[in-house]
Amino acid sequence: MVAEWQRALRVAQIDEPADVLFANAQVVNVFTGEVEPGNVAVVDGRIVGVGDYATAHQIVDLGGAYLAPSFIDGHIHTESSLLWLPQFARAVVPHGTGAVITDPHEIVNVAGLEGFEAIVAASHTLPLGVHFTVPSCVPASPMETSGAVMTVDKIAAALGDPHTVGLGEMMNFPGVLTGSDDIYAKLQAASSRRRDGHAPGVVGRRLDAYCLSGMTSDHESTQLEEAREKLARGMMLMLREGSTEHNMLELLPLVTDATYARCCFVSDDRDCAMLLHDGHMNVTLRRAVESGLDPVRAIRMATFNTADYFRLDWIGAVAPGYWANLVVLDDLSTFSVRSVYFQGKRVAAHGKPEFDVTHDIPDALLNTFHMAPLNVDHLHLPAENARQAVGAIDGQIVTQLLEVEPTVRDGLAVSDTDKDLLKLVCVERHHRTGNVGVGLIHGFGLRRGALASSIAHDAHNVVAVGVDDVDILAAVEVVAAMQGGLAAVSDGRVIAQLPLPVAGILSDEPLEAVAHAYEQMEHTAHELGSQLASPFGLLAFMALSVIPEARVSDQGFLRLV
Amino acid sequence: MVAEWQRALRVAQIDEPADVLFANAQVVNVFTGEVEPGNVAVVDGRIVGVGDYATAHQIVDLGGAYLAPSFIDGHIHTESSLLWLPQFARAVVPHGTGAVITDPHEIVNVAGLEGFEAIVAASHTLPLGVHFTVPSCVPASPMETSGAVMTVDKIAAALGDPHTVGLGEMMNFPGVLTGSDDIYAKLQAASSRRRDGHAPGVVGRRLDAYCLSGMTSDHESTQLEEAREKLARGMMLMLREGSTEHNMLELLPLVTDATYARCCFVSDDRDCAMLLHDGHMNVTLRRAVESGLDPVRAIRMATFNTADYFRLDWIGAVAPGYWANLVVLDDLSTFSVRSVYFQGKRVAAHGKPEFDVTHDIPDALLNTFHMAPLNVDHLHLPAENARQAVGAIDGQIVTQLLEVEPTVRDGLAVSDTDKDLLKLVCVERHHRTGNVGVGLIHGFGLRRGALASSIAHDAHNVVAVGVDDVDILAAVEVVAAMQGGLAAVSDGRVIAQLPLPVAGILSDEPLEAVAHAYEQMEHTAHELGSQLASPFGLLAFMALSVIPEARVSDQGFLRLV
Repeated sequence: MVAEWQRALRVAQIDEPADVLFANAQVVNVFTGEVEPGNVAVVDGRIVGVGDYATAHQIVDLGGAYLAPSFIDGHIHTESSLLWLPQFARAVVPHGTGAVITDPHEIVNVAGLEGFEAIVAASHTLPLGVHFTVPSCVPASPMETSGAVMTVDKIAAALGDPHTVGLGEMMNFPGVLTGSDDIYAKLQAASSRRRDGHAPGVVGRRLDAYCLSGMTSDHESTQLEEAREKLARGMMLMLREGSTEHNMLELLPLVTDATYARCCFVSDDRDCAMLLHDGHMNVTLRRAVESGLDPVRAIRMATFNTADYFRLDWIGAVAPGYWANLVVLDDLSTFSVRSVYFQGKRVAAHGKPEFDVTHDIPDALLNTFHMAPLNVDHLHLPAENARQAVGAIDGQIVTQLLEVEPTVRDGLAVSDTDKDLLKLVCVERHHRTGNVGVGLIHGFGLRRGALASSIAHDAHNVVAVGVDDVDILAAVEVVAAMQGGLAAVSDGRVIAQLPLPVAGILSDEPLEAVAHAYEQMEHTAHELGSQLASPFGLLAFMALSVIPEARVSDQGFLRLV
Repeated sequence: MVAEWQRALRVAQIDEPADVLFANAQVVNVFTGEVEPGNVAVVDGRIVGVGDYATAHQIVDLGGAYLAPSFIDGHIHTESSLLWLPQFARAVVPHGTGAVITDPHEIVNVAGLEGFEAIVAASHTLPLGVHFTVPSCVPASPMETSGAVMTVDKIAAALGDPHTVGLGEMMNFPGVLTGSDDIYAKLQAASSRRRDGHAPGVVGRRLDAYCLSGMTSDHESTQLEEAREKLARGMMLMLREGSTEHNMLELLPLVTDATYARCCFVSDDRDCAMLLHDGHMNVTLRRAVESGLDPVRAIRMATFNTADYFRLDWIGAVAPGYWANLVVLDDLSTFSVRSVYFQGKRVAAHGKPEFDVTHDIPDALLNTFHMAPLNVDHLHLPAENARQAVGAIDGQIVTQLLEVEPTVRDGLAVSDTDKDLLKLVCVERHHRTGNVGVGLIHGFGLRRGALASSIAHDAHNVVAVGVDDVDILAAVEVVAAMQGGLAAVSDGRVIAQLPLPVAGILSDEPLEAVAHAYEQMEHTAHELGSQLASPFGLLAFMALSVIPEARVSDQGFLRLV
């Protein structure tokens, strides 16, 4: 170790050759806000200097291209991509991403602390810095049955891992505001570590109360005034640009000379199609700069600001001592990524990853299905329990609680496509409880068959919708047989399926295959009659117990008003 | 604890009375760069909210005065004030100082790890946040004999104290640049903690080498271009405004929209007279704003920036969750301090401290003199060893190495006021080694008598200058008898003395008494003929082995060119 340091010192001070030299670069300097021409010398994966360095074992002539720190996503759930972590890395690294701060709360809802440890372990060999927050709210509520519970002890244990940066988003803001003892214990477990916030629409005195409880960031702002308040109360403002949540441009006017150091970019959720067809932080940067943000400032918000907030030393800048986690850009307007370096090694170029990953899936994330035997009787819905239904709203995860007049046969409510009232079912699949929630949903628009999915936020049981109990049953059983996934059934026949064997929520296949298969599943759902933009996308939220107004969890029909 | 939190939540959200309410404030918001009118509610010493709070057990009506976070000095050696820490707190708190980051390397040169622990312990009950860096370079060099050695093990032990923020200024930059094994071990001991830098005049590739070694701040810049480079290489730029080093205005042009978040204010050394007659960070702020810096930005640089850099959560801003460490200001131009609050309690008003301190001095810092018996023979200087002398330069700590023709009597060089060549003596006083260094100094200008001081950077032995060996001997012995201090002797008679019994370098008296006594000592030195601006001030640096060109340490005459 001391010998490495001494060699770095010699390379810096006398003309001993560097390992790698990036020559003729336009270096993006996040500290001065300027772009400086120069050469960047690298030894053992770290930058030793920026300037007139000339000799190296490997010279990479950039011919005047821009050299910036690779990008950092300040808040993401990698599970939203449907990709297992190594494949997620293959998806994002070519877009210039060098690090993510991820909260693996989907996996942890299924597989708990063991699942957490498994995904942390999977991150170690990737050419991507993966920094974890520890999920704080698993299960999301007592109204759904998750695979695991992150108790205070487990949270504390997870926080002991050096790859963690703090406590994950404190979604239970009602619990914070009322001063729950359990929340207090979790906040204490975080000690002096960062506590990520989640406070949608929380303003005024409730925001004061949330902030005094120690959450120092928020990524849920959708309104300018809401975000302005959060900045003023000391929160790091995370401007979100996700697959469905596009809040960045709305909030961009808040990024001023006085505030930019307290702002960063995050994506929260990016699906595989967006990662494949569009990009990651590079796209966010392009959009921000198109809207008038200074490009070096934009890069600072996607690099140093994020690293500094999370106290991740030595990433997020091109300066001596920093890891040579770099992105080569054609320009600072389109942010077209030419190549990407991780610890001095090229890991992607021209949009393609250049690293191998293992396809091994940790045991803790396989065979996570423990579903009690299911038969058609379990799907019966007594007519008297069917006077209210979930009202689906296309493109939104909030729903309506509707008063309805169900079609009744033999005293049981049944699906009726004429009324667009379909059975909505949620089957517990972690603990063989035999819990089955059954209700009705309006607005889904399926004309025949059934869909089932084990992506069912946040507990990830099996959620299904269908016009026919037998097809619903078949779809659920296909999902269970795959140990998780998506299925479409019609007339008793499986017409499409996408296995998600990793914790029942992720594929083990590469990005391209998953994106294609997922698009096929949506296409099939449309063929079965749904007019929703994303039928499987919406279905995944129909069991979520913490968003108004109505849901069906494994524990039954939930009135959330 | 949970009950405290729950009460804070109630105060924030419903009109349960706060402990203290600052009403009608112009609140300085370092996050938005704005001043917002409002009331600030405090519970258990912490801010619960900023806004329309109205009820409290104690209402402090500010009548439209400015309310800002109290100021933070990012780099100081409190020993420069000659005050023991509680008295230092009494000196700075009335000026609006709420926290300091101090490197107690003077005390540690005398008393080592025990001394470090003693000053840390003394900080606990003060209404001032005292955050320590652990001295990294004790002794300053092998050419002077310090009381203690901070080995790697001791540094590591000290860093284990929760009141430390990192490794103290790495002054041995030559050792860093050459890759010393010992320096490496010290840097490793700091692990991921902050490593304070000290790199005067270090630029270009040497700066790259220094930065890659992990120092992320510097307070030694005196030139604009030097400081510009340091900023660009990722260092936190500490703009210094001390008693003798006034670099702030020179560097202020570097504070721009792009850089201000990476800049903060420090004082490094402030003597008691400056603290008494002038001020502390409030003066720095006034001067910066007079020179055109935006006042809220200036306050940010003296509060949040510093706290954030040192990862001191919950100080440095007026926002929910932050300690109510506040300063009430009449305006944002003169920064006239009306009152000061620490954890919600008023601790100073109208320039006067309002808190009691203990006068107890820890045993580890008393009776630190262990000097071998001294007689006049020890002060003999063979003529052949006196062909070179220290050339003092008024107002500077650098010296010249002069070729001289000494006056010789009986084969021994003697003081000769006609030539302004005086005996300069340094007597080891920590370990009874009997080490006595003797040489000649030109430029001190004493016409009669002798001066002695146990403030003798960095090892703090006894340094003395005089026209007569007997007077020198007497002055040294007076200092030893006081267990440290300053003494002036003439014609065998002690004509002035200032005891500094705390580690031999600090008084145990209040600020006013110390400032007065110190001014008297300088006055006496002037009466003895010296024309130097600060004879005792200069004398204190005449044994320092790490600054060119010539010195006399306890180990003898040092040629440092």
